Amino acid sequence: MRKEKLEELQTYIKEFQTKKKEIVALDSNQKNFMTVEKYRYYLNNGKVLERENIKKNGKDGSAAIIVPITKQNTTILVVEPRVLTRRGVGVAFPAGYIEENEEPYISAKRELREETGYEPEKDEDITLLKRMYQDEGCSRALNYIYLMRNCVKKYPQKLDKDEFIKYFECTFAEALELEKMGYIENANSIIALDKAKSLVLK
Amino acid sequence: MRKEKLEELQTYIKEFQTKKKEIVALDSNQKNFMTVEKYRYYLNNGKVLERENIKKNGKDGSAAIIVPITKQNTTILVVEPRVLTRRGVGVAFPAGYIEENEEPYISAKRELREETGYEPEKDEDITLLKRMYQDEGCSRALNYIYLMRNCVKKYPQKLDKDEFIKYFECTFAEALELEKMGYIENANSIIALDKAKSLVLK
Repeated sequence: MRKEKLEELQTYIKEFQTKKKEIVALDSNQKNFMTVEKYRYYLNNGKVLERENIKKNGKDGSAAIIVPITKQNTTILVVEPRVLTRRGVGVAFPAGYIEENEEPYISAKRELREETGYEPEKDEDITLLKRMYQDEGCSRALNYIYLMRNCVKKYPQKLDKDEFIKYFECTFAEALELEKMGYIENANSIIALDKAKSLVLK
Repeated sequence: MRKEKLEELQTYIKEFQTKKKEIVALDSNQKNFMTVEKYRYYLNNGKVLERENIKKNGKDGSAAIIVPITKQNTTILVVEPRVLTRRGVGVAFPAGYIEENEEPYISAKRELREETGYEPEKDEDITLLKRMYQDEGCSRALNYIYLMRNCVKKYPQKLDKDEFIKYFECTFAEALELEKMGYIENANSIIALDKAKSLVLK
């Protein structure tokens, strides 16, 4: 790992770490982003089960994850506050929720553009690497991971007002190192690295 | 994939599929297994964020996932109702929640024993393959994946009363095929397959 890249990353992490926290609400309610539904299911084998389902913003919480590869053959990671983790900051591939009735690869392009300003030259540069349930016992979230080659910086970053993201360019080999070093530690990005590896490193 | 193994699997799936469902509760409340907490965070950079946290049974929801390898060099998968998925049934590596103050590898041994009756001969047969956040934006769940070699069937299966699990023996190569065929489609098991592959297939 290049020293200057590691320092750049540590700067972003420091900035996003939590200084203080306050409790807002312990009870969940319909004003929250996340809500819980409970259903009773009757199985083919005659058994009856009750199971709960987490919804995010009233939807399934399905997400699109992008492994961007630039024309210079580097990749782009995002660094953002992840206040629930030990470090308080996450390092990951760009990702975001799929909107109602949005094609997953369109969500992926939109999220990559919003978070980084990058876009692949053509739709033919996009490959679906994997589709998987994030937490199949508790959520319907079905995530899509895309490899996007020939990405070019075309736009400014465009974030929601409570979204804070630094994007971070490095080689794909360095991204693999960041996983080994414990910087990248979320399931989506780990699967993305594993599934993209044989296609990107040749 | 051997035809008889695929048929065995399809039998389990059929049994666990949902026949009918009823709504129990749309509102989340403290009687649910899952609850949502909301906190306000003050970052080092001066920004303020509100973020929610899913708790499961009052805890973080951290889980242990096991890749069992038997003395005959086969692996063990579990088939169980996963009512939120399209198939309604999940095929996965044995897994379960880490109890309060329980060492993750102890949880892993306990879950493997409860779900399948298998146990590795010695603790030296256990290797930590990976640790990762399941959904770092919304949960503190930090999952541990273990490879357990030299597993032997020693006990009867021991399930909770609302738990329905069939265990399923196959080769590790067949487990990889089941991922490709779309039977194994949860993030934990996909990471487990990727991380165990180079150690198991030689």
